[in-house]
Amino acid sequence: MSASTGAGGVQEALAALPLVDHHCHGVVTADLDRTGFESLLTEGEVWPGSGISPFDSPVGVAVRRHCSPVLDLPRHAPAEAYLDRRAELGAAEVNRRFLGACGTAVFCVDTGFAPEPGTTPRELAGAAGGGAVAYEVVRLERVAEAVAAGGVEPGEYGAAFRAAAQDAVRRPGVVAVKSVAAYRTGFDLDPARPSPEEVTRAAAGWLARADDRLDDPVLVRHLLWTAVDLGLPLQLHTGFGDGDIRLHRADPVLLTDWLHLTAGTVPVLLLHCWPYQRQAAYLAAVFERVYLDVGLTLHHVGPARARAVLAEALEITPFRKLLYSSDAYGVAEFHHLGAVAFRQGLAGLLRERVDADELSPADALRIAHWAGRDNARRVYGFTDLSDLDDPADPTISLPPTSPVEHH
Amino acid sequence: MSASTGAGGVQEALAALPLVDHHCHGVVTADLDRTGFESLLTEGEVWPGSGISPFDSPVGVAVRRHCSPVLDLPRHAPAEAYLDRRAELGAAEVNRRFLGACGTAVFCVDTGFAPEPGTTPRELAGAAGGGAVAYEVVRLERVAEAVAAGGVEPGEYGAAFRAAAQDAVRRPGVVAVKSVAAYRTGFDLDPARPSPEEVTRAAAGWLARADDRLDDPVLVRHLLWTAVDLGLPLQLHTGFGDGDIRLHRADPVLLTDWLHLTAGTVPVLLLHCWPYQRQAAYLAAVFERVYLDVGLTLHHVGPARARAVLAEALEITPFRKLLYSSDAYGVAEFHHLGAVAFRQGLAGLLRERVDADELSPADALRIAHWAGRDNARRVYGFTDLSDLDDPADPTISLPPTSPVEHH
Amino acid sequence: MSASTGAGGVQEALAALPLVDHHCHGVVTADLDRTGFESLLTEGEVWPGSGISPFDSPVGVAVRRHCSPVLDLPRHAPAEAYLDRRAELGAAEVNRRFLGACGTAVFCVDTGFAPEPGTTPRELAGAAGGGAVAYEVVRLERVAEAVAAGGVEPGEYGAAFRAAAQDAVRRPGVVAVKSVAAYRTGFDLDPARPSPEEVTRAAAGWLARADDRLDDPVLVRHLLWTAVDLGLPLQLHTGFGDGDIRLHRADPVLLTDWLHLTAGTVPVLLLHCWPYQRQAAYLAAVFERVYLDVGLTLHHVGPARARAVLAEALEITPFRKLLYSSDAYGVAEFHHLGAVAFRQGLAGLLRERVDADELSPADALRIAHWAGRDNARRVYGFTDLSDLDDPADPTISLPPTSPVEHH
Repeated sequence: MSASTGAGGVQEALAALPLVDHHCHGVVTADLDRTGFESLLTEGEVWPGSGISPFDSPVGVAVRRHCSPVLDLPRHAPAEAYLDRRAELGAAEVNRRFLGACGTAVFCVDTGFAPEPGTTPRELAGAAGGGAVAYEVVRLERVAEAVAAGGVEPGEYGAAFRAAAQDAVRRPGVVAVKSVAAYRTGFDLDPARPSPEEVTRAAAGWLARADDRLDDPVLVRHLLWTAVDLGLPLQLHTGFGDGDIRLHRADPVLLTDWLHLTAGTVPVLLLHCWPYQRQAAYLAAVFERVYLDVGLTLHHVGPARARAVLAEALEITPFRKLLYSSDAYGVAEFHHLGAVAFRQGLAGLLRERVDADELSPADALRIAHWAGRDNARRVYGFTDLSDLDDPADPTISLPPTSPVEHH
Repeated sequence: MSASTGAGGVQEALAALPLVDHHCHGVVTADLDRTGFESLLTEGEVWPGSGISPFDSPVGVAVRRHCSPVLDLPRHAPAEAYLDRRAELGAAEVNRRFLGACGTAVFCVDTGFAPEPGTTPRELAGAAGGGAVAYEVVRLERVAEAVAAGGVEPGEYGAAFRAAAQDAVRRPGVVAVKSVAAYRTGFDLDPARPSPEEVTRAAAGWLARADDRLDDPVLVRHLLWTAVDLGLPLQLHTGFGDGDIRLHRADPVLLTDWLHLTAGTVPVLLLHCWPYQRQAAYLAAVFERVYLDVGLTLHHVGPARARAVLAEALEITPFRKLLYSSDAYGVAEFHHLGAVAFRQGLAGLLRERVDADELSPADALRIAHWAGRDNARRVYGFTDLSDLDDPADPTISLPPTSPVEHH
Repeated sequence: MSASTGAGGVQEALAALPLVDHHCHGVVTADLDRTGFESLLTEGEVWPGSGISPFDSPVGVAVRRHCSPVLDLPRHAPAEAYLDRRAELGAAEVNRRFLGACGTAVFCVDTGFAPEPGTTPRELAGAAGGGAVAYEVVRLERVAEAVAAGGVEPGEYGAAFRAAAQDAVRRPGVVAVKSVAAYRTGFDLDPARPSPEEVTRAAAGWLARADDRLDDPVLVRHLLWTAVDLGLPLQLHTGFGDGDIRLHRADPVLLTDWLHLTAGTVPVLLLHCWPYQRQAAYLAAVFERVYLDVGLTLHHVGPARARAVLAEALEITPFRKLLYSSDAYGVAEFHHLGAVAFRQGLAGLLRERVDADELSPADALRIAHWAGRDNARRVYGFTDLSDLDDPADPTISLPPTSPVEHH
């Protein structure tokens, strides 16, 4: 490839690349009224009577710009027109359009936080069409809370949770586990594996409470160490999220001691990261099994800032360590918008470097393919992705699985 | 408006927009010698004999670039020439020129930290001319320290401070209160309202000390909760400031627990924020009543970087949550430079997005008006700003007031 | 100089400026195999069998782009070709080429962390040729650890360390001391000088351990205060480093209390800083004797992002407070790449501001000379740099010294 075609080449390549969205959620299958749609647009709440609509935010502007054409509306359509057209088409058609438009070939779906009524992973991939497949990510806090809800003695909790988690990840199509420890305690935890006695004592306290939300620091540590034992890649929410987060406790560098203690075990995938994407990049640079994405952030900042955020995330991140995720939840607009922001943001960044002769066109293409698809394939062992440029690219050693819709 | 005129449109619109500067201070009314002027240029100290002048810093370069022409000097005039011309014109004329040039229609003046001899809020607005008006912001630490200085028993301190604060905000023209808790203890405080017994005990300790600086953690918490009871918008210093700050303790996300506990009460306006503007944006995105600005930062980084800082601040901030402030203090150059940096920085950012078709020209104009004027109008209830484009834009429910110069 | 030549002028001036690299290390004098070279490319480890090469990272791309031509290879040469050519030329020739190409006139070499077999400071400057000189920076943890290894009673440790440090800095060519407290305890320490009794007690504990790594918090504080007593500039590792760092504990603002307590003493030079360059800038803006650089970061992010990092570092940093360092270690590529990234990044930033008329061409030139050479000259008292534009520029008051190769 010549240098002159190279710069355009990376943009076209990224626009056409079937993405692996390694962390997302299902979409609502019912029609949404204005409040219902707006409540899914924001990580905050809808604020009735405030005069402030989630449409009047970067993500709202990006939806009106990039999602309107998918619904046959002009770019920047007004919010009312957008909602009217959405209602007119109906949820099924809207979902089909956005999930088809996003060009995602593989969806890894966190089933521990799903809209009601919403798509199963299989339904999500089916709505995307074009042979898209879905895998499942098991949210471990949900497993633990189900164990508690089912009734368990404190002294049996540790073993019961482990057994339930092992059962959960043996289900067909499961490729990873996830923890929202960031929400429950944050990462400034004692990094050591708790002893069985500590777990029993903590479980006694937790199970005695009416609240079923797992937020005991000892049990959160136990959950993270159980994740290590399961042997699957571990996705960790870090940084940006809804109003329940304490952002400074979700800074991924707080995990450093724990990463040292668990060296040589499972891949750890830092999700979202913003505004700590540089801190996440540091961890990805010095720990062999740490990876990162800037999912969730991509659609919230929109294509207007996705490149800037990616540029920070990539300052020192090894190019085999950046993955794509949308973290889309509830509305299929976000599966689309995340993909648009990722493709445009990364292409703009790589193209600029090729234009400045800081990067060769061939390297730009390789980085684009790695970040959009092949890095995830290696981490999750998607050996069935047979259309790869480089079929010899080794996956890291993990138990093989098949997508959920094959079952 | 057509797209082609739109991009230029937002620049012109922002250049012409009468701003609401929702947080600033008065200016010195005496002539300043070189040391006096330099000491007001920097958030540090003047370092005599160091060979380092505050002119040799981004703010110094920006003053020489943007303020020289207002004093009839060529752009980038040398520091000596600038100081000579300033002395030649005299303080009153210099103040009149900059306050007139800044195009600010409303000044909200923190009267708890004012230069001596300096302008009153009415004098500040008077020097600006053109019908500019001023309101007052009451700094609560000053009220508390006056109560202590006036003599009070520990057991009466809580009630006496509350009564004094209520009196202070009843004065005509008062539209907000402010706290510098960031300087005194930082925000890593127990978020709960202290009990009367705790307040009495803490007051006994504080009043027994010779130092009259309110820095007891219990009394700072009491002050913040008293602010909530007063019912007025609460301005909070966060992030960047002088050498007394501990920057990491002024990260606004440390307020998260307190913001949860005080949900549904007064608007909270995060001032300055840098370098934690993304953290502030997160809070503005998930808490209905949290707002932010990047005042103080704007003139210190200058127009050369104002756009970059605003771009980070706006990554996820709802567009009705960004306000303008200069936080200018002492020299009227900063009232002007803050306005120039804000207008140019925001216009550059919006124009780039319009040019990239990421934003419609109409949306760009709306965002410009909101950030420069209308968001402040809503928060502070400036119903007397009758020249609004959208007079139907509701203000949030607050007691009405009138500017201080009407009295 | 006219404005039109000015913008180009700063680029040419920076390209030609003999730099003072105020913090770097020696280079390996032996030939390196692939693993040996790759292990020096990354702040992490080499991960054999992972399929991830340090070449597939921003620093690897930058080496292939900017270092290949120095070895007579085309830009963006493949890693294999690069390693082959490197082996073909041999270590001595490779080192000679890069150290000559970097255009550094003065190397300040941290001799407390040096490759084996590696260059002495004198050898490093000799390989650079062209009259380059080297000075030495004494790493105080090494001095303390040598005292412990030599055998000392706990009650004598304090005095013995002080005496050994005084001896070390009396060696010819020593211009500064350095601490890696960031690695050992981080900066969230009690800022006060420990009492002799505390030092004795802590020394008893440390000396009784088999481990000779100085990481006792009391002894680290004692080391920092001893550094103050030595009277030489103190370099402090902050922020980015290898996997041993806890990044959040290396945020330089955690030093604020200590900087207040040690006001008026030695210059403190914050090294690296990333991703806390804005926090470092705050300290440089408010503390007279605080300086900063973004060394190490420059070559890891490469010229593609050096400008963005410098732009953040310079948002509020006084222009006499930014220094250049490479923090190159082991491979001479980094002495070259750090210089390229600094020259191009700073020139790009300054040129953009001149083009936007935010900075005069003369000011741009002055800032370039200050940051690349003259600020270091002032701090370290390099009065023998007789080719200065402004020989009247005063150095700060420090004992005079001569470069190590004069002895």
